[in-house]
Amino acid sequence: MSVGPSNFAEVEDYLRRLQDRLCAALQAEDGAQAFKHDIWTRPAGGGGETRILEDGAVFERAGVGFSSVSGDTLPSSASKQRPELEGRRWRALGVSLVVHPRNPYVPTAHLNVRFFCAEADGVDPVWWFGGGFDLTPYYGFEEDALHWHHTAKAAAGDAYPFFKKWCDEYFYLPHRHEPRGIGGLFFDDWSVGGFDGAFATARSVGDHFLPAYLPIVQRRKDLEHGERERNFQLYRRGRYVEFNLVHDRGTLFGLQSGGRTESILMSMPPAVTWRYQWWPEPGTPEAQLYKEFLIRRDWVPL
Amino acid sequence: MSVGPSNFAEVEDYLRRLQDRLCAALQAEDGAQAFKHDIWTRPAGGGGETRILEDGAVFERAGVGFSSVSGDTLPSSASKQRPELEGRRWRALGVSLVVHPRNPYVPTAHLNVRFFCAEADGVDPVWWFGGGFDLTPYYGFEEDALHWHHTAKAAAGDAYPFFKKWCDEYFYLPHRHEPRGIGGLFFDDWSVGGFDGAFATARSVGDHFLPAYLPIVQRRKDLEHGERERNFQLYRRGRYVEFNLVHDRGTLFGLQSGGRTESILMSMPPAVTWRYQWWPEPGTPEAQLYKEFLIRRDWVPL
Repeated sequence: MSVGPSNFAEVEDYLRRLQDRLCAALQAEDGAQAFKHDIWTRPAGGGGETRILEDGAVFERAGVGFSSVSGDTLPSSASKQRPELEGRRWRALGVSLVVHPRNPYVPTAHLNVRFFCAEADGVDPVWWFGGGFDLTPYYGFEEDALHWHHTAKAAAGDAYPFFKKWCDEYFYLPHRHEPRGIGGLFFDDWSVGGFDGAFATARSVGDHFLPAYLPIVQRRKDLEHGERERNFQLYRRGRYVEFNLVHDRGTLFGLQSGGRTESILMSMPPAVTWRYQWWPEPGTPEAQLYKEFLIRRDWVPL
Repeated sequence: MSVGPSNFAEVEDYLRRLQDRLCAALQAEDGAQAFKHDIWTRPAGGGGETRILEDGAVFERAGVGFSSVSGDTLPSSASKQRPELEGRRWRALGVSLVVHPRNPYVPTAHLNVRFFCAEADGVDPVWWFGGGFDLTPYYGFEEDALHWHHTAKAAAGDAYPFFKKWCDEYFYLPHRHEPRGIGGLFFDDWSVGGFDGAFATARSVGDHFLPAYLPIVQRRKDLEHGERERNFQLYRRGRYVEFNLVHDRGTLFGLQSGGRTESILMSMPPAVTWRYQWWPEPGTPEAQLYKEFLIRRDWVPL
């Protein structure tokens, strides 16, 4: 099945409303700061709207970006699975979210929903959806992990076992031999069910993010914490930086292809530390994170 | 000219003494903390000695690493200039240093000296030296930049114009349109003058690091500063992270080839911040750094 301008309009409409809904909910949850909006254009084609809330009561930094960009030659990083599309004209629509909360008991969260289309003269355009959401706790709570994955399963339906495994494989730091967090959903090159079916899957992932994340924020945002927990959070955020700058395909493609740097790097945590050869003492809550949460684990029945 | 075991022994001897000298001088300068030593072996071949001083009076983090590693197949990143060597057996010796001072008026400094050899059956081994040193100030002082580049020129002699330009090109963040700092020296694939000549060049670079850097540390380490200067230092350190994780060939090769992660990432600053769309007010010392120092500038006559 081919796609045309009306499909793009439909996806753009969904994504812009999704950005609105995400920002409204996060801003209400924060209660102290508002999102700032920046509309930008990309010299090589297209543009977007970056929204960021900084130094809030609940969120130290929350970024929600919409982009609609296009180019003359699809880079290989955009479709690892289908190298034959490299070099085609392309258009991409997407919403990306990264939330870095202040309280170390509230996990960092990430969401992405994107639509890609590669075109060439004389052939049908090839299109696909991609995205997912994943959670990066600093302190592990089984209740939160179960809720996150139950909601992920509800979002993905029959595709949950597949998207869950894909997420575990993608958000992995080989140089640390560590997953980035407790995972969630990841999918790419997705056109199962034709445009309507794949779009419904992508929408379901987008729509389930707030119900997956907000209850966790609400449960943990007022937990008392001190310097110890803050220091561990700052240290663990280093792994987030390492993943995004060394491994994340979207980040690297953006930086290398002349994307808007400030929008791409709003995924960076606001404050980070690195320590040499530091490991938590066995038996502490910090050690428990590594032992029981930063492992590939089936939180809900597949 | 070919190289043999005695050449490796000579280079290793120089590099191990260089590591000793660098650590002794930095530790004396710090006065509060000592270097910790870690000897490690690499499963795929070789090993090294990592030395790190953390939380000192003058240096928030100073890492000086020696490594002697080898492998069965030279990765392409090791010799960009000579792809025909890809896949050969290889051996590498090196010393790397990164110093992150506490006082924002003291610049961050980096030094590397390395010796590479690629071997194959039935042909002479191909060998080369590489390395250099570069400076990353947070606040610009013309006196310091002049001293740094005068010393760099003394170190490199006739090769200074070439190594200086190479440094400006290498330590550049394309996604920021910014140099990492004020540069210095960078060279790679260097065998000019045969083993003796090229080794003398590499030694001269190694030997000139302390006279280039210590006078600057001594001049600036006791300057009074406050939260404003500290915040700018933390923010600018983000660029150092971005360069090392996105662009630095040594870092990426190390992380991707199973190197010792904690040794590779001791180049990371101990504490870093990111801010969205933050630029210094025109006319401030922070703006002056961008305008007068973070540009390609010939500090001393070429």
